[in-house]
Amino acid sequence: MADSTDHLLTRDLDAPVEDDQVGPLAPLEGEPTSVDVEAIPVDSPEHATTTPSQAELDERLAKVRTAMAAKDLDALIVTDPANMYYLTGYNAWSFYMPQCLVVPASGEQHLFARAMDAAGAGYTAVLPTEQVHGYPEELVHRSDAHPYEWIGARARELGLVEDDERFRIGVESDSHFFTARDYLALASVLPKSPGIDSNELVNWVRVVKSPYEQRLMRIAGQIAQRAMERALESIVVGRRQCDVAAEILHAQASGTAQHGGDYPAIVPMLPTGDAAGTPHLTWSSAPFVEGEATTIELCGVHQRYHVPLARTIMLGEPPQRLADAAKVVEEAMAVTLEATHPGASCEAVHTAFNDVINRHGLTKDSRIGYSIGIAYPPDWGEHTISLRPGETRELEAGMTLHVILGMWMDGWGYELSEPVLVTPAGAERLTHVPQELTIRK
Amino acid sequence: MADSTDHLLTRDLDAPVEDDQVGPLAPLEGEPTSVDVEAIPVDSPEHATTTPSQAELDERLAKVRTAMAAKDLDALIVTDPANMYYLTGYNAWSFYMPQCLVVPASGEQHLFARAMDAAGAGYTAVLPTEQVHGYPEELVHRSDAHPYEWIGARARELGLVEDDERFRIGVESDSHFFTARDYLALASVLPKSPGIDSNELVNWVRVVKSPYEQRLMRIAGQIAQRAMERALESIVVGRRQCDVAAEILHAQASGTAQHGGDYPAIVPMLPTGDAAGTPHLTWSSAPFVEGEATTIELCGVHQRYHVPLARTIMLGEPPQRLADAAKVVEEAMAVTLEATHPGASCEAVHTAFNDVINRHGLTKDSRIGYSIGIAYPPDWGEHTISLRPGETRELEAGMTLHVILGMWMDGWGYELSEPVLVTPAGAERLTHVPQELTIRK
Repeated sequence: MADSTDHLLTRDLDAPVEDDQVGPLAPLEGEPTSVDVEAIPVDSPEHATTTPSQAELDERLAKVRTAMAAKDLDALIVTDPANMYYLTGYNAWSFYMPQCLVVPASGEQHLFARAMDAAGAGYTAVLPTEQVHGYPEELVHRSDAHPYEWIGARARELGLVEDDERFRIGVESDSHFFTARDYLALASVLPKSPGIDSNELVNWVRVVKSPYEQRLMRIAGQIAQRAMERALESIVVGRRQCDVAAEILHAQASGTAQHGGDYPAIVPMLPTGDAAGTPHLTWSSAPFVEGEATTIELCGVHQRYHVPLARTIMLGEPPQRLADAAKVVEEAMAVTLEATHPGASCEAVHTAFNDVINRHGLTKDSRIGYSIGIAYPPDWGEHTISLRPGETRELEAGMTLHVILGMWMDGWGYELSEPVLVTPAGAERLTHVPQELTIRK
Repeated sequence: MADSTDHLLTRDLDAPVEDDQVGPLAPLEGEPTSVDVEAIPVDSPEHATTTPSQAELDERLAKVRTAMAAKDLDALIVTDPANMYYLTGYNAWSFYMPQCLVVPASGEQHLFARAMDAAGAGYTAVLPTEQVHGYPEELVHRSDAHPYEWIGARARELGLVEDDERFRIGVESDSHFFTARDYLALASVLPKSPGIDSNELVNWVRVVKSPYEQRLMRIAGQIAQRAMERALESIVVGRRQCDVAAEILHAQASGTAQHGGDYPAIVPMLPTGDAAGTPHLTWSSAPFVEGEATTIELCGVHQRYHVPLARTIMLGEPPQRLADAAKVVEEAMAVTLEATHPGASCEAVHTAFNDVINRHGLTKDSRIGYSIGIAYPPDWGEHTISLRPGETRELEAGMTLHVILGMWMDGWGYELSEPVLVTPAGAERLTHVPQELTIRK
């Protein structure tokens, strides 16, 4: 235990420790513009669910504990379902109820969930039964009691946490599903221990993907490509948006003959016409009409690993401004991917992009990319790396990024993205769909 | 402003104010066991998106303000996307970023969202542009700043909230996506104002559905029936789970010829074989095998209104225990629905169920139903009414419930559910799928 008098949830502004950079600057190799996904070799053709080796799980935990030690944490309460999955394999649609993994600085990890979910945790989590604890059903949705009071008390009994001002408990204060009330209920049974913001500590460990994870990302890329191809085929004048969404959802779940698809953290988004100027509208049952462009943002998922992908399609003759934007963005993408290599800073990648679009009189306020990997609803971003001004972190081999060039104008929009793996040789595209504006006349 | 010295987020244990009961006890009418959904009349056949009238929106806001007054709230910060949609129509996949609706005790409502989402809010929300505020992109995913600091400061400038110990601010502390850090960032710029738990105040207003909402629930019921029929057809020996999920997702999005489907708050769940003993496992790419049962839990969605539905299918000869459980549960469902009428307490409905299964030597720990309506991922429950022991609240006409009899045993399970509308005449089923165990040999 560190000697600390921090108050509850003192904000720890230290940036995560950065590893040394690997790999030299290398030019991006020429890439095919369209590839048959079934022809891409991925080792192990069978459809069976694979799991990381125990050695890999041990290494993940060791890295998390190194990061915990750097923050003087005596325990970490992991609430992001992606982080729980990363550390234990636990995977169920149970995150809408309070649940967490408690990682002590040493000793075993323990999982806490609703009783009916704890009972089935062994189907996915590698934890032995005695490390899984179910809170009673009567604590669900009450105003006078809360599961996190039970969880905190049980974790104390098990010696995983202590109510002591020197005992520093890390919490993922900004993870989805760890609500204000969850936090306050936990704090109520550990009033003396300072809660320390983890600052996405586990997410940052996840940033560099192991070879095992890279393989899953490549498979997810194949599924994303399939889903995008289906989307581009399906959008025709007169068809309802919901029917195109149905085709995409079908392709996402089916995956490929070898590798099944998993559910997406974000549903397909198809803003069309005027609405294409706003990025996060979901589908309606309105039909596609002649003379309108649609931006498509979707993902492929395999075993929770997400590869997002965005394209734009025009029904009819594109307005000049759209055709022009498409050309500029395609040029900007080439330059951006060339700048994406180990040792490049996130802001340098952004600058490379920005120089191109500024030269053509365009501007963009929002970031142009972020880290991807394991994800659960409602977001497929990893909440770590952002490609934007002021981000001095350098890229490393093994990182996976969604480079998304979304231009949202007043009344129209254009999107082109590439999900990539950073390799010593530069950015490797995870999907191979032609980059130009698709035009259907 | 009430004179109060409560600390931040003092828990308010008052139960919501209960309205008088309406409608006499009436026996449940006999119901058809299978119905062609396209044959069910719902007014207004066109596929166009409909919206609630301004009068209905005004009434919703008035009810929320009545409930706010009962808690002496000077303002309410609404963060549950379902509640934001209910009050303003705002509907986008933007809830993975901080966003909220501020409802002052009097005056206009104001929406706060990420700049790129605020720009497009007018596509769905009825609020005028000057009541929509976008926080700058650079606040996204930073450790040294937070959107809720900006939101709190802006809301103060606009006079929507005050930093004063007599100014009581209601917060939805247990809503998904209102994270611990969101709350603490907001509190940091309003250090003097007591934050009061809203105790799902808006959710409780939503419990009784208007005629407009009942119509949307009936349409969602048609879509749920379609999706379940597709699921029951699709599950055959040798087919992969992910391919069946694909069929269900397709049916959910397509909806009916008249009414498009919307995205589900929870993906289809298909636990099969041993795993059917645990309720929230999502699909894998393993094939269905002879001799195993699968429980199917899915929903139909129309304009965010959710109607969930559960059934069980057996591939091959059912084991005696499963066939027996199916009969008991079907009997229990009939008795439970008969007990579901205006004036019945939630616990009385549970008791009616429990008496039947206990007589047959079965027990069930978890609740047998909950309120349904508008929903967003990750949960289609409304977080209000639970059918379980100790819940003395009485049912009212216009409530919509998912009565779900899920028996999760060690190594096997059985599920049967009925989504219903409580009417003066009793429970009206929103779907019409045969209730018995489906057996495919």
